[in-house]
Amino acid sequence: MKAFQDYYPDEYAHCYGCGRNNAQGHQLRSYWDGDVTVAHFTPKPEHISMPGFVYGGVIASLIDCHGVGSAAAFASREQGGDMDDNPELRYVTGKLDVDFLAPTPLGPELELRARLLELAPKRVNVEVSLSAAGQLCAKGLVIAVRLPPSMA
Amino acid sequence: MKAFQDYYPDEYAHCYGCGRNNAQGHQLRSYWDGDVTVAHFTPKPEHISMPGFVYGGVIASLIDCHGVGSAAAFASREQGGDMDDNPELRYVTGKLDVDFLAPTPLGPELELRARLLELAPKRVNVEVSLSAAGQLCAKGLVIAVRLPPSMA
Repeated sequence: MKAFQDYYPDEYAHCYGCGRNNAQGHQLRSYWDGDVTVAHFTPKPEHISMPGFVYGGVIASLIDCHGVGSAAAFASREQGGDMDDNPELRYVTGKLDVDFLAPTPLGPELELRARLLELAPKRVNVEVSLSAAGQLCAKGLVIAVRLPPSMA
Repeated sequence: MKAFQDYYPDEYAHCYGCGRNNAQGHQLRSYWDGDVTVAHFTPKPEHISMPGFVYGGVIASLIDCHGVGSAAAFASREQGGDMDDNPELRYVTGKLDVDFLAPTPLGPELELRARLLELAPKRVNVEVSLSAAGQLCAKGLVIAVRLPPSMA
């Protein structure tokens, strides 16, 4: 099954959070699950904050990458195709808000789920939840904006 | 010169963003600069998003750790001492909001500056800016909350 990030061309696949060409990165992979999207990630031992808990910056990173990848997928679906049909729909993060609702235990696989809040011509708003062992630990809002020419 | 993070006891110094005992982490160090606080960090080549630019998750991580460390420093100053005098003033991230204002170039040292917005008994609100080569690239709000007993 092809992840959203597998559609990114090679020159855009270096991202520390989700780039398949970044050996040191998290290599997050996001998929459809009906009308929402899902990704799974098991933090490494070094992704610690306090002993026993996941570092908030890693949580923010996962929400960021799952949100932006999902934004491209939501926008492609709206155009009536998959991401291969809409290579111009590349997004970057304009705004990232994360609420840490409960300490996230370090050890279990984390699940990220995203749903579309709003789709505008140059912007996609996505809500992302992060759970560990069935408990909601963090919620995020990602405002993804179309890749500006200055970054392309 | 002692960084805020140098006051964290060894058992709280594993954080991936700022723990001196985390060899794989960013090891961010924050200091006073008059009434505000400052930290510097040079991203590694793997901290990439698009070619030439810094990954947003690393930017969020730096804002997070500089904000939380600064929260402890601001709270200690309010108590009339340095962080050694107030070991109970340990904080974790309750909320992290980041606005990405301009693409952050990968290469130059980044500068983080934080100022106190509000200090409450169990919460400190901090505003953090991130600049590269003198240009403001991101702004963040960190709501730091006193370390809950469940994490201690």
